[in-house]
Amino acid sequence: MVTSFDPRTASSVEEVAAASSSDEVAALGERAVAAASALDAMGRAGRAAMLRKMADALEERRDDLVAIADRESALGPARLGGELTRTTFQLRFFAEVLEDGAYLEIAIDHAGTTPMGPRPDLRRMLRPLGPVAVFGASNFPFAFSVPGGDTASALAAGCPVIVKAHEAHPATSLVCAQALAEGARRSGAPEGVVQLVFGQAAGAVLVEEPRIQAVGFTGSVAGGRALYDLATGRPSPIPFYGELGALNALVVCPAAAADRPAEIATGLAGSFTLGVGQFCTKPGLALVPEGASGDALLQLLAEDVRARVSAVMLSERVAAAFHKTSVDIAGAPGVRRLAEGIGAEVNEGWWGTPLLLEVDPDELSGPLLEECFGPVLVAARYRSARQLLELLDRAGPALTASIHADPADDQLAEELVGALVTKVGRIVWNAYPTGVAVSWAMHHGGPWPATTDALHTSVGASAIRRWLRPVAYQDVPERLLPPELVDDPLAAHRVPRRVDGQFVLP
Amino acid sequence: MVTSFDPRTASSVEEVAAASSSDEVAALGERAVAAASALDAMGRAGRAAMLRKMADALEERRDDLVAIADRESALGPARLGGELTRTTFQLRFFAEVLEDGAYLEIAIDHAGTTPMGPRPDLRRMLRPLGPVAVFGASNFPFAFSVPGGDTASALAAGCPVIVKAHEAHPATSLVCAQALAEGARRSGAPEGVVQLVFGQAAGAVLVEEPRIQAVGFTGSVAGGRALYDLATGRPSPIPFYGELGALNALVVCPAAAADRPAEIATGLAGSFTLGVGQFCTKPGLALVPEGASGDALLQLLAEDVRARVSAVMLSERVAAAFHKTSVDIAGAPGVRRLAEGIGAEVNEGWWGTPLLLEVDPDELSGPLLEECFGPVLVAARYRSARQLLELLDRAGPALTASIHADPADDQLAEELVGALVTKVGRIVWNAYPTGVAVSWAMHHGGPWPATTDALHTSVGASAIRRWLRPVAYQDVPERLLPPELVDDPLAAHRVPRRVDGQFVLP
Repeated sequence: MVTSFDPRTASSVEEVAAASSSDEVAALGERAVAAASALDAMGRAGRAAMLRKMADALEERRDDLVAIADRESALGPARLGGELTRTTFQLRFFAEVLEDGAYLEIAIDHAGTTPMGPRPDLRRMLRPLGPVAVFGASNFPFAFSVPGGDTASALAAGCPVIVKAHEAHPATSLVCAQALAEGARRSGAPEGVVQLVFGQAAGAVLVEEPRIQAVGFTGSVAGGRALYDLATGRPSPIPFYGELGALNALVVCPAAAADRPAEIATGLAGSFTLGVGQFCTKPGLALVPEGASGDALLQLLAEDVRARVSAVMLSERVAAAFHKTSVDIAGAPGVRRLAEGIGAEVNEGWWGTPLLLEVDPDELSGPLLEECFGPVLVAARYRSARQLLELLDRAGPALTASIHADPADDQLAEELVGALVTKVGRIVWNAYPTGVAVSWAMHHGGPWPATTDALHTSVGASAIRRWLRPVAYQDVPERLLPPELVDDPLAAHRVPRRVDGQFVLP
Repeated sequence: MVTSFDPRTASSVEEVAAASSSDEVAALGERAVAAASALDAMGRAGRAAMLRKMADALEERRDDLVAIADRESALGPARLGGELTRTTFQLRFFAEVLEDGAYLEIAIDHAGTTPMGPRPDLRRMLRPLGPVAVFGASNFPFAFSVPGGDTASALAAGCPVIVKAHEAHPATSLVCAQALAEGARRSGAPEGVVQLVFGQAAGAVLVEEPRIQAVGFTGSVAGGRALYDLATGRPSPIPFYGELGALNALVVCPAAAADRPAEIATGLAGSFTLGVGQFCTKPGLALVPEGASGDALLQLLAEDVRARVSAVMLSERVAAAFHKTSVDIAGAPGVRRLAEGIGAEVNEGWWGTPLLLEVDPDELSGPLLEECFGPVLVAARYRSARQLLELLDRAGPALTASIHADPADDQLAEELVGALVTKVGRIVWNAYPTGVAVSWAMHHGGPWPATTDALHTSVGASAIRRWLRPVAYQDVPERLLPPELVDDPLAAHRVPRRVDGQFVLP
């Protein structure tokens, strides 16, 4: 059985579902195949309507959902209410992406002659991959779980989704799935557009299920690597879009450190402790200049951290991993404990306490360069631009890198941007990496291990691209073409297209 | 040593190069890293100029190149001359793709408010992955080898290329690389934008070389799978874009079979024997209706095949594999030999003879459903639409599927298009799949094993997408942004962009 726990009391509350058997996973896969053609046949307008009805159905159960998710995650009603808003916004955003239609990447080359001879009529568009699997994330019971970005973008693409419910919030997963099913029903969508499996073993079976055509995952490097290996080891491998782990370095340039140490200290402390440090975009490494201004900044940061209280983490596993890793890295060579938050000892349950460490730059290596999921920040000092760039090189790829710089830092900042653009997916300027907007221009990804597939994003409009593949129609008569591909489409089917090499907007 | 052979005489001609050692591969990787930033810094205009100079340099050596490639491949001067034209066209085409600039997929979201609160300024564009590896293909000494589509698209993206020269044409590879280097020099490009390694072992080392960020491959399922497993098994896995094997079914609908059996028989015989059947898009399975019109079509096809002469294949390995596989499938249960071409017995060297087989539809399975690289076609008869769809289902994914249909076949054709669009990358109507145009709308790919990555294409403009990853710039000042990302770019940097959700053309 899959049990729902209350992290605040460290106790089990209810049994939510039986772990899914292999036969059950296969049956869900079969049902998803049947749903795939119906979902495709709904067209862009039909799926846009479905996504909006799903958002409505989630909103209708807002109070319930927030209460259940809070009981399972201890993230608090304010954060979870905001997260649910983000989730319904995201579903509606993908409705807009569908209506826009540029995501189809349509290109039409009319028949013509080329230096190689005659060219036939060719019409290309993107088409859904078929049923896909999504793994819910522990730290976002809504926005990166059952009704989250992977699900929203896959449904928009026309791919039925089977979600592996995360062990940290099975009850939330179940109610979310019911709400999505209600939204699907109201929009005339087929049964089985979103289905659930429970249990880690079922998750592995799901990745190897032959009917599954791609996987979306957010989680740890170890868990993600294991599933990636299953996906790529299949007789017919499939894409595995995993968001695994990132250190997310934050650089404070000298002039910025001198000019606004208090502002940066407060912002950085807020960012690395936000949500008890349980963000994939948490800044895990701060690179601060040597000298008086860096000293002052770290002192302010330490004072801020000492005033922050410990808080309940998502699950026993998350808390245990955080405690083990933070003890390990605090005891690593060259590491000093600068500050700790208030009161871990007196609390029951699965608590995490903010921790600020400093490491000699020469000792920045090994586990200090891996993501520690929880409220810990490692600071290191640099004495020159060269040393700073060398430290960033050692830090390796990540989802984000942040630069705090004043205009007087411009020369260094230019070098930093040039170096970081080869290593990360998002460069944050005078701000903090936690907080990932849902928008057309957002990118959430980076070279391994930030994500398994640096080419694609799990947040923002282009997340839909992961669930689509191109098809070219050669000389196919208009009566057999998709409605967006004919020469003169009806108004409802007009989308941005490249026609004979030129972009044409509707 | 890597030896150049003459397939017409089945004899070795010269030793071209030593097999590359692991140390040499590492040194080339190091050099490619140095070239990467210079290639990036050339900008779109600089790389477009480089691609055109490379095309010029190849054209200047056209006579040499065609002669050497003909001696190594036996494909004949006419075909190879056309292939070189395609290759230089392709390099120039990617110069146009660069100048167009839409491939950067730029999106700009100005700072604003959202239901989740304030959103920062976000600017997204695609950036080069870094050095990549390309494996030359035996069957296209130019267009899918050293100066081919993978190289052209990767250089356009800004990624230095290390090509593993194919054993079937090492001398051609060397001269092509010299021409590309000459073109690079003339355009002020850095040393090392295109480099070569020789030998199968070096190819495997290259895929595991940590500096390599992606791999392009065209070849067999077995070879592709082995390299795919290396690429995905790395400590930091990288994308592997392999084009492996495809059966490429061709369906003749009943009315078309009745109306134009001679035309279809001639076209089909020409297509499956073109280039001695050594095309990844070769039609390998013909599905023909039962009854008199299907009988007539197969009889005409058999007559055509009997008049075709055997020809020299690319290499000893290709010829041996073809002979073994065609003997295996000709001897499989339910298979009859309908026709064979002229004169295999009397020739020396590595010859392939056209072969037409028929199989009972119930016996269409196993090796009959795998690509056989060479001039063999398996025909099967269908008695109903249901049986036809079932046979196509068994045939599985492929690069292409072709439908020959008259207007009277429309109902069946609609079902076929609906079924095939989930299985193949290109649907060909009343034509033959050999011949893959280089254009904006072309797609060359399909679900495994057609390609390892169904999402991307190895032919056409969007082939560039494989070598690029997104980066988002958050609140970064204009003075530090790439020139295409500022609000009001100079004329040279104006490209199609999505600004605040709306497409804006330059």
